[in-house]
Amino acid sequence: MPNSAFPIAFSGNPLWRLAEKRDGASLAQAIAHPSAKFICFAEGKPVIRRVSDESVVCLFAQNEILPLSPNMGEAVLLGHLENVPHIAVAVPGQADRLTSPFDSSDIRPLFTGHLLSPPTLGEIAQASALLSWHQGCKFCGTCGAATRSESAGYKRVCTGCGKEHFPRTDPVTIMLITHENQCFLARSARFPEHMVSCLAGFIEPGETIEEAVRRETQEEAGLRTGEVTYVASQPWPFPHSLMIGCTAEAENADYVLEKDELESGGWFSREDVRAMMRDAHSSGAQVPPFGSIAHFLIAGWAEKREA
Amino acid sequence: MPNSAFPIAFSGNPLWRLAEKRDGASLAQAIAHPSAKFICFAEGKPVIRRVSDESVVCLFAQNEILPLSPNMGEAVLLGHLENVPHIAVAVPGQADRLTSPFDSSDIRPLFTGHLLSPPTLGEIAQASALLSWHQGCKFCGTCGAATRSESAGYKRVCTGCGKEHFPRTDPVTIMLITHENQCFLARSARFPEHMVSCLAGFIEPGETIEEAVRRETQEEAGLRTGEVTYVASQPWPFPHSLMIGCTAEAENADYVLEKDELESGGWFSREDVRAMMRDAHSSGAQVPPFGSIAHFLIAGWAEKREA
Repeated sequence: MPNSAFPIAFSGNPLWRLAEKRDGASLAQAIAHPSAKFICFAEGKPVIRRVSDESVVCLFAQNEILPLSPNMGEAVLLGHLENVPHIAVAVPGQADRLTSPFDSSDIRPLFTGHLLSPPTLGEIAQASALLSWHQGCKFCGTCGAATRSESAGYKRVCTGCGKEHFPRTDPVTIMLITHENQCFLARSARFPEHMVSCLAGFIEPGETIEEAVRRETQEEAGLRTGEVTYVASQPWPFPHSLMIGCTAEAENADYVLEKDELESGGWFSREDVRAMMRDAHSSGAQVPPFGSIAHFLIAGWAEKREA
Repeated sequence: MPNSAFPIAFSGNPLWRLAEKRDGASLAQAIAHPSAKFICFAEGKPVIRRVSDESVVCLFAQNEILPLSPNMGEAVLLGHLENVPHIAVAVPGQADRLTSPFDSSDIRPLFTGHLLSPPTLGEIAQASALLSWHQGCKFCGTCGAATRSESAGYKRVCTGCGKEHFPRTDPVTIMLITHENQCFLARSARFPEHMVSCLAGFIEPGETIEEAVRRETQEEAGLRTGEVTYVASQPWPFPHSLMIGCTAEAENADYVLEKDELESGGWFSREDVRAMMRDAHSSGAQVPPFGSIAHFLIAGWAEKREA
C-alpha cells in the first residue's frame, strides 16, 4: 500500500473496534485466540523486530512474545481484523535492553521513515494512546486509591470509591494562517533544526474549535483571524492528542511572536514553501515531514494557484 | 443580547484568557483586584442569586461571596473582561443548603431557560469544566500522591513524583445522518421523554473525527456512511466535552439499532422534523432544545429545501 495514499499518518486504522462489546470475557477470548496478534510497548515505546533498513515488524504471535513477559492482566483489545484479534500489552524492563531479536523504537522514526505500513501505524497510534493512558491512570484522581482495568482495557475502575475512568484524548488545533498570498510559519525551540510549521495549541475548556484557533493565533503571533475552516484531523500519539487541522485568513499582517513559545516566524510565499518542500529554500527552512497534518495543510495551500 | 444570535450555547465566551501568562502571582493579583468577579460552584453546581423567573445572577463580588467560604487556594483565573478578572472557585457544603440569598442550579435549566446571557453561559461552561477537572485530579494517576494547583488553576503538579497534569477536554462526535430526503434520529433511555436526537459518541484513541463518525454510526445504527462534513463545534460542560458536529450521508437505509444504547430510532422527513420543532409531531417526538448543537444540526437540515 503506497504511503502516498495516506497523507495523514496514523489515520486509516483498519480494526473493527466493536466498542459496544468490550468486557473481560471478550478480552480473555481474544488472548486465547490461536492467531491473536500482539503489539507490545516497553517503557512507552513500540517493540519491533527489524526486517531490513526499510521495514520492521510490530505485530507478533503470543508464543513469540512470551520471553518478554507481557502483562496480560492489563492488556487492551484493540479490535479485530478479518476476525483475528489484535491486542496491545505492556512488557516490563528497559526498552533498550530487550531480548534479541526484539528491539524498541520511538514512534516518530517509524512514521517518518515509512518503516510500517500506514494501517499498522494506525494501530500503533491506538495502542500507544491507550497504554500511555493506563500508565497514567493507575490511581484514582478523586480519592488516590488504586484502579483496575475493565472493559477489555477501555475503562479503569477505582478499587476505593468505584469511580470509572475512561481513556483520554486531548484535542489540539493546528492552523495554517494565510494573508493574501502568504502563509504564516514559525518555529519553536523544541522543533528539529530548520523546521518551521503551523501554529498549534491545545483546545481549552469552554472553547469551540474556532475560538481556540483565534485565541492561539492571537496569543502566539498577535494575528487576528476571520473565518476559520476545518480541513482534516489526525490521531497524534504523543501521547494521545487529536490534531484538528484548520485554515484561517489573518485580518492583519503585522505579527508579534510570543517569545516563550516561538523563536522565529514570519510570512512565506507559495514559492518559498514549494522550495522548502524540495529542501531547497535559501534559508535552509524545511516543512514538517510528509504524513503530519502540518505538512498536509501546508502542501495543500502551496499546491493551489495564487488567489 | 438576543439568544438567537447564539444558536450554539456555551460558545462566545468573551474572556481574554491570556493563556501564556498564568502563574500564582497573576492569580493572587486577580483575586486582590477590587472589581474582580467570582463564579462559585457548590457540589459541581453553579451558585446563583435569582433575580426573577427569567433571570439569575452568577457573577459576584468577593465581599458578597465571603459568607460562602470560597476555597481561594484552588481558585481558577478564567480570564479578563475589560481588564476585570473573572475567577472560578468552589465553595464547601451542600448545594441545596446555601446561605440566603444564594441558591444553586443545574447548568441545563440555566441554558434551556435562557436564564443567563449567552456570554455568561460561556464562562459557566469554562468554570464548570475546570472545577470538575480539579475535583477529579486531586491525586496523581501515576503514583497516587496528592497534587496541588499551579498556573492560576490550569495545571496540577504531583507532590510525590512531580508529574504535571493538565485540564481534560473530551472530544465527542455528534452527527446528523441523512439518506436521500430523510434524517436519522434516535433516542436513548437517558433522554428526556419524547426527545429524539442525532447519534453521538466519544472519539476513541487513534481515530480521526471522520473515522469516529463512521464507527459510531455503524455500531449504533448499522448504517454505512460516505463523506463526512464538519459543521460546527460546541463546548459541552457535562462535565468537559467538546461536541464536534458533522453531517454524513448514509449509503444504506436499513438500520439496526444497538439496543443497549438506543431504545428507538428511525428516518424522518423534513416535514416530520419541522413539526417536531413546533412541538406538533403526531408521535409527540421533540428535537433537543435550541442552543444544543444537535438542534443546530437538525434545524439547519430541516430548513433547507429538499435536494
